[in-house]
Parts: sequence; structure tokens; C-alpha cells
Amino acid sequence: MSADRIFNFSAGPSVLPLEVLQQAAAEATNFNGTGMSVMEMSHRGKAYVAIFDETKANLKKAMNVPDTHEILFVQGGATLQFSAVPMNLIGKTGKADYAVTGNFSNTAMKEAKKYGEVNIACSSEDKNHTYIPAQSEINVSPYASYFHYCSNNTVYGTEWKYVPETGSVPLVCDMSSNILSAPLDVSKYGVIYAGAQKNIGPAGVAVVIINKELAGAEHPLTPKLMSYKTMIDTDSMHNTPPCYTIYMIGLVLKWLEKQGGVEAMAKLKAERSKYLYDVIDDSRLFVGCAEKAARSDMNVTFRTKSAELDDKFVKEAKAAGFDTLKGHRAVGGMRASIYNAMPIEGTQKLAAFMRKFEVENS
Amino acid sequence: MSADRIFNFSAGPSVLPLEVLQQAAAEATNFNGTGMSVMEMSHRGKAYVAIFDETKANLKKAMNVPDTHEILFVQGGATLQFSAVPMNLIGKTGKADYAVTGNFSNTAMKEAKKYGEVNIACSSEDKNHTYIPAQSEINVSPYASYFHYCSNNTVYGTEWKYVPETGSVPLVCDMSSNILSAPLDVSKYGVIYAGAQKNIGPAGVAVVIINKELAGAEHPLTPKLMSYKTMIDTDSMHNTPPCYTIYMIGLVLKWLEKQGGVEAMAKLKAERSKYLYDVIDDSRLFVGCAEKAARSDMNVTFRTKSAELDDKFVKEAKAAGFDTLKGHRAVGGMRASIYNAMPIEGTQKLAAFMRKFEVENS
Repeated sequence: MSADRIFNFSAGPSVLPLEVLQQAAAEATNFNGTGMSVMEMSHRGKAYVAIFDETKANLKKAMNVPDTHEILFVQGGATLQFSAVPMNLIGKTGKADYAVTGNFSNTAMKEAKKYGEVNIACSSEDKNHTYIPAQSEINVSPYASYFHYCSNNTVYGTEWKYVPETGSVPLVCDMSSNILSAPLDVSKYGVIYAGAQKNIGPAGVAVVIINKELAGAEHPLTPKLMSYKTMIDTDSMHNTPPCYTIYMIGLVLKWLEKQGGVEAMAKLKAERSKYLYDVIDDSRLFVGCAEKAARSDMNVTFRTKSAELDDKFVKEAKAAGFDTLKGHRAVGGMRASIYNAMPIEGTQKLAAFMRKFEVENS
Repeated sequence: MSADRIFNFSAGPSVLPLEVLQQAAAEATNFNGTGMSVMEMSHRGKAYVAIFDETKANLKKAMNVPDTHEILFVQGGATLQFSAVPMNLIGKTGKADYAVTGNFSNTAMKEAKKYGEVNIACSSEDKNHTYIPAQSEINVSPYASYFHYCSNNTVYGTEWKYVPETGSVPLVCDMSSNILSAPLDVSKYGVIYAGAQKNIGPAGVAVVIINKELAGAEHPLTPKLMSYKTMIDTDSMHNTPPCYTIYMIGLVLKWLEKQGGVEAMAKLKAERSKYLYDVIDDSRLFVGCAEKAARSDMNVTFRTKSAELDDKFVKEAKAAGFDTLKGHRAVGGMRASIYNAMPIEGTQKLAAFMRKFEVENS
């Protein structure tokens, strides 16, 4: 870590690989001899189309996306997908299943109600979303147009450790906070979507990976830009895409490949979170907020015995170079978001800081 | 102009001020001592909120936006506004007026038909959009929820030289390609919107300036993120905004102020375009595509006597460092897009190149 950089535990937007930022800076006024910045390029020009195509191909490779599926780069974040998913897909039967395991899946569920009938297939609300329901607790409707869940709950620090079995009902998954963190069988999904600003790049673009068979049956009032069919037919260029943000994703994907791809990320994420969970499990001061079996490797939520001590921890951690550790207001305490680009020394050093803090405050 | 930069005449995304790109590069790994890039900052954190607030305040100042109006930063470009405008506003009477003077206003009009009854208040289609209808040619419906027009037609190179008079019907204007190029009385408008990638910053964000009285009556199926009321109530932060792109807008606005603001831009745009129009008017080879009275100072469209010679011009111009001069396929010929950030020497030198080309090809 460069001397003037802090460890940034923000839940998103979040840390990016230093070498990616350095390359972007080096190319800021003249990309690859074109005499202009990527920000200035026509999105229809050769130079930009090459960047776009390469980025898409690299994402296809990184996630092993089958040819049945199309990759889209869209605007409006995961939040606009909360609307786009039902607008495009719920019409088939008029119904959809939602698993509610946190803040974002709950928001997605509420938005879907505008467009059709929603069945809450399972919910962890009874225990403030500290766990992930088991397969046996999921009530899949056979006539649902799709089954929607959020694979990692950023706010609560829980992560699905299995892919729900839904029979012939297509799986739709918001993977905003754990996409690209482990190998995945994309063919199991009807739609995967993710805001970029956690594991993929800067805020301002979302990735949608869709089984092409599902496109083309949108509600007639669907905004043209939100139609999956429009976006597939125009290769995400119905209008000007967020060009620079996609370029940044391209740099992140090249970095990812150099690290060893999603297999390496899976190993790293277990290792990275273990430093923190080990402290929590050994501690008499720190308590994890989520049930052990459901703990996320991307967002580690924990607290001390009091809100006052939590505040003290956050403040002293910040002074020591560990930034944005305050937990979400729905949970309180602390949250360390440790996405792909968090260097392993970030959690090593935070773990050491936690142990020191415990000694000083016991 | 730095030695390794070309003159970029792209219609958008388009040229940005060199000093803006240089500052972004300098701050790429550590913004203002925060130890992180702007791309990595939590959008709820103090450092980013300060950037956001300053950018919004500077836009308010640059455009002299009255307190009756709110500034929003939204995703999806002007294209998503083609849907958002009718979804939010057409419900009042179920009807809206559209002036069709080019490609984008036509697309906006077609999209609005999904949501209500559309009256084409005027059209320049009879002469392939080479002119702007006069006030006397506009058929305003007294019961329209709003009147929509596009103040500068990027594809055809025409620009409205007056603000349409519509009585009590609110004016809605797509200003994507001439916003911030001249002083404007914002109070005359119900909604102004503009994709950033021409005069404001990089692609990936659109600015919406809305009279707050018009918000809150959206169609029930409006995606939550597209509700003007939601965006006003959350200060454009219902979800994670395109943080870095907004930061870039902030840098552009600071540059704009240093240049003398929109008053200076108005002077410059007349001066900049005059170099090219003078060549066209003096020429026996080059012909302007738009009627003189409607000519845009932002997009200069012209052609030679043949498509072959047009191709030769574009090719030789590119070799000489004048990039992206090929006209849109709907018009053919050439198009020089000369937005705020185009240095005056860009059109001076292009004018000289045109004269030389004429001598060599007559």
C-alpha cells in the first residue's frame, strides 16, 4: 500500500486496486496514442468500441458466461434493476417470488409489487436478517415468473452459501456485493445483476447478465432504455453508455486476471475475512452481528458491548488509517467491507488493531 | 494544446478541458489528502458529499437557477428522460405537445406516446430538419401537460434562436448539446435536462433542472429511481449516484467559471463557429447543411459536392489531427462539433485546413 493511501472499508463505492487507478491517471489526457482521454471518445468510434468489446469479452471470460447469456452494461445501478426486472419479466405469469434477507432485497420486493403479484418465498426479518433461510424454508411458487434473491446482504453482513433450488422458475439474483468473488455457474441463472461499485469498478454502471430467452416480453410502459431486448439488440448502446466507468471495469478485469481470476478471489476472500472473524470469535469485547453459518466474506459486521465504545472504535480506527468502519444504521456497530480490491494486509492490520483496542478497553 | 493531443470534433462524448483532465489525473490515487480516489469514496461520506454539494452549488450559480427549481443528477442520459418526462408529467391532462426538429426530439416524441396523447406542435421533417419553425408555425395545445422541444439538434446542426412562447403550458427542454453555452432564463422552464457528455462532463450522468411544483404526480408504474419527487426528496441520492462523473462535472464548472462563465461561453461559441461558417459561406466547394438562420454554434454541418470528396476530406482531416468529422448518417457530409471545451484554435486551424483542401480539390 502506498504511503499516502488509507485502508478504505467503505461498503460501496469502495476500494479499487491502486495499479488500476495509476494506469487510469497515466492515460488521463492521451489514451494509447489516440490524443484524447477515454472520457472524450465517441462511443461509436473505433478506439472506444475496442475498449468496450475487450471489457465485455474479459467479463465473459472471468465469469465463464455461456453463449445462452448476454452481458449488458446499464445505468441506474442495481436500484433501477429493482424496477427493470419486474417490468421485463413479471408479465409471463403476473407473479414473482422474492426472498427477503436484507435491506436491498426488501426494497426490490416492494418495487416489484407495482408491477405484479409478489410472494415472499422466505424472509429473515424475524431475526433482523442475521441469517439466511435454508432451502427447506423457501416456499417456491410453481407459477412464479422468476425467483429473486440477493446473494450477499451488504448491510447485515450475511451471504447465501448455496444457490436456491427453484425447479423451472428462473433465478434472478442481485449480486452487487459479491459478484466476481468466487466461481459461479452462470447457466443456473435467468438474470444476474450487480452495481459495479463494490467488486467491479466505480459507481455509475450496473452489469446485467441475462439468459436471452427471457428478453422481449416487457410491460408496454417499460422505458425503452430499460428494455432488456433493446439493450441486447443494441449491445448496450441504445444510447451513450457510461463510457469511462466501463473502461475502468476493463482495467479492474485485467487486474483480476493477473491475480488469478475468480478462483484466486475465492481463496483470498476466505483468507481476508478469517483475520477479522478469528478476532471476533476469540474476543470478549467484539461480537459478530450475523449468525456464523451465514457470515459474509465481503461485509464483516460486528459490535462491542456499547454504542459509546463502538463510536470510540470507529474514531480511533479512522485516526489509525482504517476508514469508513461505521455500521449501517439498521444494524449499528461496525462494518468492514472487504471486497476484491482490499489488500490482505488491510484485514491483517485491522485485526491487529482490534486486538490492541480490546486490550486497551477491557 | 498539448503536443500529443488532437482536435476532437466528436458530437459526444466530446472534448474536455485539458486542465480538467490533468487535475483529475493528479488526484487519481489520493484526493485532497483523503488517502483515496474520488471513485472509492462512500457517497454518504463527508468528503464526497462536499464534492457533490459544491458541484451542485456551482451549477446553480453558473446557470442562475432560481430557488423554485431543483437540480438533479440522474443516470440513463437524456434518453431515460425521454421516458421520465412523460411518466412524471403527462398525467396532468394526459396530453403533451412535442416540437419535432431532429433525431432526438423525434425519439422523445415517440417514447412519450407510450404514456399519453401526443400532439406534434411543429415539425421540420418536411425539409429534413434543416430549419427551426417560427413561433407562428407552432400549434400549442391549451390542454397540454407540457411542451417539449430540443434546443439544439446535434445531428442536423440547427439551434433554436428563441424560446417558444407556450402560455401557461410548462416548457420542457432537452438542452443536451447547448446547455451552459449562453445565459438562460431558467425560470421560463418547467424542466430542463441534458446529458453531460457534450458541454458538462463525461458520459454517464444527466442533469435535470425542474420546477419543484411539477414533481409528485408521476404515473404509478414509474420506477422509483425515475420519480422526480424521489430524486428531489433524496437530493439525487436515492441510490449511489455516478460519483466520479459528478466530480468531473465539478471540475468542468470550476474551469467554466475561470473562463468567465456562460457569458464568456456565448461570446466564444459565436466566435468559434464563425471561423467555419465564414469558410462555408465563401466557398464554392463546401455547402452548409442547415439554413443560415437556424445554424447551430455547437454542431457545424457541411458537405462538399460528392460523397467521395466528403470521405476524402474526413480522411485527410484525421491525418492532420482533426478527429471525428464524419457527419451523422441521417445527414451525410461532415459535422464539426465544437462545444465549450473546444479551444478556439481548433476551429481556426480547421478553417485553414478547409481552405487548403478547397484549393487542392477545385
